Amino acid sequence: MITSASFYYSVTRLERPSAMDRVKTYVEGFDDVLGGGIPRGSIVLVAGTPGTMKTAMTFSILYENVKAGSKALYISLEESQEDLRDAMGSMGLTGLDDLELYILDIGKIRLEHKDEELSKNWLEILEKYIDQRVRMNGFDLVAIDSLEALYSLSKLEHPRRDLFHFFGFLRGLDATSFLISEVPSGNDGRIGRYDEEFLADGILYLRQFEKGETDVQLRLRCVKMRRTKHDHGYFALIREANRFQLARAISE
Amino acid sequence: MITSASFYYSVTRLERPSAMDRVKTYVEGFDDVLGGGIPRGSIVLVAGTPGTMKTAMTFSILYENVKAGSKALYISLEESQEDLRDAMGSMGLTGLDDLELYILDIGKIRLEHKDEELSKNWLEILEKYIDQRVRMNGFDLVAIDSLEALYSLSKLEHPRRDLFHFFGFLRGLDATSFLISEVPSGNDGRIGRYDEEFLADGILYLRQFEKGETDVQLRLRCVKMRRTKHDHGYFALIREANRFQLARAISE
Amino acid sequence: MITSASFYYSVTRLERPSAMDRVKTYVEGFDDVLGGGIPRGSIVLVAGTPGTMKTAMTFSILYENVKAGSKALYISLEESQEDLRDAMGSMGLTGLDDLELYILDIGKIRLEHKDEELSKNWLEILEKYIDQRVRMNGFDLVAIDSLEALYSLSKLEHPRRDLFHFFGFLRGLDATSFLISEVPSGNDGRIGRYDEEFLADGILYLRQFEKGETDVQLRLRCVKMRRTKHDHGYFALIREANRFQLARAISE
Amino acid sequence: MITSASFYYSVTRLERPSAMDRVKTYVEGFDDVLGGGIPRGSIVLVAGTPGTMKTAMTFSILYENVKAGSKALYISLEESQEDLRDAMGSMGLTGLDDLELYILDIGKIRLEHKDEELSKNWLEILEKYIDQRVRMNGFDLVAIDSLEALYSLSKLEHPRRDLFHFFGFLRGLDATSFLISEVPSGNDGRIGRYDEEFLADGILYLRQFEKGETDVQLRLRCVKMRRTKHDHGYFALIREANRFQLARAISE
Amino acid sequence: MITSASFYYSVTRLERPSAMDRVKTYVEGFDDVLGGGIPRGSIVLVAGTPGTMKTAMTFSILYENVKAGSKALYISLEESQEDLRDAMGSMGLTGLDDLELYILDIGKIRLEHKDEELSKNWLEILEKYIDQRVRMNGFDLVAIDSLEALYSLSKLEHPRRDLFHFFGFLRGLDATSFLISEVPSGNDGRIGRYDEEFLADGILYLRQFEKGETDVQLRLRCVKMRRTKHDHGYFALIREANRFQLARAISE
Amino acid sequence: MITSASFYYSVTRLERPSAMDRVKTYVEGFDDVLGGGIPRGSIVLVAGTPGTMKTAMTFSILYENVKAGSKALYISLEESQEDLRDAMGSMGLTGLDDLELYILDIGKIRLEHKDEELSKNWLEILEKYIDQRVRMNGFDLVAIDSLEALYSLSKLEHPRRDLFHFFGFLRGLDATSFLISEVPSGNDGRIGRYDEEFLADGILYLRQFEKGETDVQLRLRCVKMRRTKHDHGYFALIREANRFQLARAISE
Repeated sequence: MITSASFYYSVTRLERPSAMDRVKTYVEGFDDVLGGGIPRGSIVLVAGTPGTMKTAMTFSILYENVKAGSKALYISLEESQEDLRDAMGSMGLTGLDDLELYILDIGKIRLEHKDEELSKNWLEILEKYIDQRVRMNGFDLVAIDSLEALYSLSKLEHPRRDLFHFFGFLRGLDATSFLISEVPSGNDGRIGRYDEEFLADGILYLRQFEKGETDVQLRLRCVKMRRTKHDHGYFALIREANRFQLARAISE
Repeated sequence: MITSASFYYSVTRLERPSAMDRVKTYVEGFDDVLGGGIPRGSIVLVAGTPGTMKTAMTFSILYENVKAGSKALYISLEESQEDLRDAMGSMGLTGLDDLELYILDIGKIRLEHKDEELSKNWLEILEKYIDQRVRMNGFDLVAIDSLEALYSLSKLEHPRRDLFHFFGFLRGLDATSFLISEVPSGNDGRIGRYDEEFLADGILYLRQFEKGETDVQLRLRCVKMRRTKHDHGYFALIREANRFQLARAISE
Repeated sequence: MITSASFYYSVTRLERPSAMDRVKTYVEGFDDVLGGGIPRGSIVLVAGTPGTMKTAMTFSILYENVKAGSKALYISLEESQEDLRDAMGSMGLTGLDDLELYILDIGKIRLEHKDEELSKNWLEILEKYIDQRVRMNGFDLVAIDSLEALYSLSKLEHPRRDLFHFFGFLRGLDATSFLISEVPSGNDGRIGRYDEEFLADGILYLRQFEKGETDVQLRLRCVKMRRTKHDHGYFALIREANRFQLARAISE
Repeated sequence: MITSASFYYSVTRLERPSAMDRVKTYVEGFDDVLGGGIPRGSIVLVAGTPGTMKTAMTFSILYENVKAGSKALYISLEESQEDLRDAMGSMGLTGLDDLELYILDIGKIRLEHKDEELSKNWLEILEKYIDQRVRMNGFDLVAIDSLEALYSLSKLEHPRRDLFHFFGFLRGLDATSFLISEVPSGNDGRIGRYDEEFLADGILYLRQFEKGETDVQLRLRCVKMRRTKHDHGYFALIREANRFQLARAISE
Repeated sequence: MITSASFYYSVTRLERPSAMDRVKTYVEGFDDVLGGGIPRGSIVLVAGTPGTMKTAMTFSILYENVKAGSKALYISLEESQEDLRDAMGSMGLTGLDDLELYILDIGKIRLEHKDEELSKNWLEILEKYIDQRVRMNGFDLVAIDSLEALYSLSKLEHPRRDLFHFFGFLRGLDATSFLISEVPSGNDGRIGRYDEEFLADGILYLRQFEKGETDVQLRLRCVKMRRTKHDHGYFALIREANRFQLARAISE
Repeated sequence: MITSASFYYSVTRLERPSAMDRVKTYVEGFDDVLGGGIPRGSIVLVAGTPGTMKTAMTFSILYENVKAGSKALYISLEESQEDLRDAMGSMGLTGLDDLELYILDIGKIRLEHKDEELSKNWLEILEKYIDQRVRMNGFDLVAIDSLEALYSLSKLEHPRRDLFHFFGFLRGLDATSFLISEVPSGNDGRIGRYDEEFLADGILYLRQFEKGETDVQLRLRCVKMRRTKHDHGYFALIREANRFQLARAISE
């Protein structure tokens, strides 16, 4: 029962904001766009159509942060650890043997337990597991690849409500979360299937621009980042010398 | 039973309009656009896609008015008070300890009472609570963030009818209301999910314009404001020196 | 039973048309566009997106006609009489105390009888009431604000059929009717939810045009007016000196 | 039962086509576009959005032909005979008292028999009535205004199949038929709700073109006319001196 | 039961392709575009919006081939033989009395057996009949006008599967088939209702292009033709001197 | 049951990526775009509208690789082996009698077992068969033509989940897979019906570009290719001298 007391309890004066601490993306030039990086503890959507390097950029953010001392958990719901490892390795994300970057291969588990798959409440299982691992291993970065794959495993009866609680759970962790959101081709405008775009603290949007009749250029845009004054424009994104880089000069 | 009497009762000659009193937005230049501000007692939609500063601008309107002597209630259905406080603080909305600006953290209550959530009629609970608080604390400004979150908590069987009565309740308060309305990405044209746009007295529309191929500019437009002769055009909206400001000169 | 007799009865030769009598809109310049005004007895849709002054223009048509000797009934299904009165007063529609302009505040009745609302057949109640009042008070102008609000109160099982009979009822009155039709934002093309646009005798369409990147101009267009040879183009609509005026010169 | 016999019976060699006889539209210039007019016995859709003079043009085709010796039946399913008569009279379609132009006022019958309306199979009633009248009065021109109104009176379980048989019935008459088809605003492309456009022999399409930002011009186009080699282009349509006229010169 | 044997049986090495034999369209210039014509035995969709001469072009292909020695069956599901004959005759497709061009008038049969229509499985009846006639009369060309009419007569529970088998049946015949596919107005992009476009061997697409504001030009395009290297572009299609002709010069 | 153990088991440190081995497409110029070819073991979508040579290009990739020593299985779900063989032969893919290129003619089997078709779980049958043949014959290349045909044979209750497991099965093979994906006309943007585009390792997209008013050019684009740094642009695709070739020079 919700007593009016609990209401009063939850009505309090504003207090001074805590000092800001940010997670670098290590995408050259982009951290400046974000005023230093992503506010620690944020839940960030990384959205884009196929082939926009959502996985690569997200993984690289974890990778670079781990090299700088973070501990990260990458949860892959479909792509196998081997494939992911190969793909990342081919991008120069190597020498990982001594890094605290863990991959949870849900895909493998699903293939091994195909028959039980339907009976599980994966959202709950995942919450339990993440909670446990974050407490045990002290991960401060978590990535889930992808939200749509998670939806395919969980019947959301009240999507926004269920997602509110899932986001609430993620916020409860002492970690920064990245949720990969797949935008179907031919639908560049939309971000997220339900209302993730409003529940999330930040949205990084990756998009392929057709330039003229034949060229296609990959661009990155920060659509939204709470607690951050950022440029909203598009930046050409390239990967050179084992680093993601912005091509456009930033004027701020 | 509706007696024809009640009909006659409700048919009366027009009387002289009461003197107009307006709530300033404190968005530099915008109050002139509105002919002084928002008519007190109005219900105003603040609509926009993700990242258009709906929350920031609405909160800042309450904040500046409270500094000028108002009493305000900000109802957050999803974003926690702490996150909201941090986000606002990072925008320079500080020194609030002595201001009469209250935040009702429904999100916190929901997380604490997840299991009961479904059984509640939140629309009713919220009405009761707001009514009680407005009478007790004499709030003259109320904001609800957001309508879509409220919909996710309430099954509206006859949306327009239910919203008519909710709006009727808000009108009954001696306060000015701000309802944040989330417009999904890739759907810039639409405002509101049901017919809020017609029930509301005013609509402030925030939109990100893609300028050329790479720039994105935030713009504000007053789509509608009853009892007000206003400019309908778009204005570039920026935040400088802890103030929201319009960039375009106003010609009226 | 429909006897073939009733069929023959209804098959008759054409007779000479009755002399034309027109209701002025008092929108400066627009009555010329309409060849003198709206044919008396017509059912006219006043359609537009939010903020296009549908209510203001319709009310002003009644107001000016009443000043010229008409008797008018304005039926508001959602906006309260007080709000409407204030809004209109703020536009200079004042000095009404001695005018035969009645407002039926259905919104008030609905708020007072919320619980019974669902059980009522509002379409029928409204028909009965309008019929009674028009006979008693001799109203020659009737406005309903809005059709969409009326739909929210009435379950139309066979919309077009039900609307045909409602329009038939209105035609039976010795009055000219104005039906406000709400066009949702981002849907400028469509007029009316069902087939009102074909059942109505006339359609006045209000639209906000984005001029260039920042300006927005209000325009009025007569899409359709039976028994009238009219210009089909758009005209800029402004309100100056307590009058609605067309800005574009009319070439005919 | 369908015996293969009936199959063989219906398989026959091609015979020489019968001499062509055409119904003039009396729209100045348009009969040339049609190579003399509409092939007698055709079923023609007259399609357009509201305010495109579908009724006026169709009625005028009947009117002019009757003056030239035809006998015509105009079936109005919604607009009353009086309103139609007034509307047409105001366009100069006068002096009809001695013309063989009959109007069947189904609208009136519906209003008088509202309660029975639902129980009727209007499609069947209409077929019976038309058949009877065409045989008795020898009508050679029949117009139905409108198809959409007819749909609202008849539940078509298999629209295309039901329409095929209705069109088959019309073809069985020794008359030329005009079916008014309402195209909702904001949907200029589509013609007809089901597949009428393929079942019909001809399609006359009326459309309002926005010229520049403010002008709107009415245009007529023959989309399709079986047994006719015609120009497919758009022509400006005006009504001057009690005649419909094409404005564009025809180059063929 | 499907034994793995049947699988092995159906796995065979590739053999040399049989010599190519083509059916001319006799559309002047178009056979060159097709590298000689349509591969004999193909199933070809002739798709287009109303008024694009789908029937005329298809019939003319049969007509010209019959004059050159073929035997053809034209199956009309809705348009009567008389109307079709007249329409074709008016295009100069005359002198047919001694040609082996048969028309199966399904429309007539349907009108004569309206009541039984629903109980029939027309797809099956048509297959039986076509099979019988092709074997008896040795037709090498078959046309069905139209697919959409056929759909209206057959409830396809698994459209693509049912169509696969119908196409399989057609392939089994020693004939070349033409299937007329109706593309609704305002939907120029789509071809076919289900997946016919992928099941068919060839697609001839007819489209009306609006040139400037008033002109409309008919164009023909070969979207797809298996076993053929063809130009994919649009060609203006005209009918002059009793022949269809392409207007654009072919550069290959 | 999923024990937390299995979770731990699946959480492992990253290991060094294995050396990259690539399958050439033999489309002249395209292998350079792909950095040598398609990573062996990938699952690649070949998507395009009708007439974009999806089948031809895919078959040619198998054909050229088989000539270079591979063993390939081409699974055709609808087009018969004979038709496919003829079509390919006409493109110069001849002299195949001694090549290890097998065609599984599912279409033939379906036509022979029409009545049993519905009762089968084709997805399962296909998996069993492919698995068996790949182990027995050592195929290293497998193509399925098409995914949409496969969907028409299998009711996917949870499309993404079912496809995840089907893709998982394909990954389990020691082969590279090509899945032909049909994009309906007038829908150039979308790729795949469900979420194949995200499950696949690579996407080759074929599209017809309308150049000016009459020309249509075929273009190929690599939308996505995991473990590969590739150009995302469009390339004109032509077939000359029995080879597919890119027309645009590659600048990288």
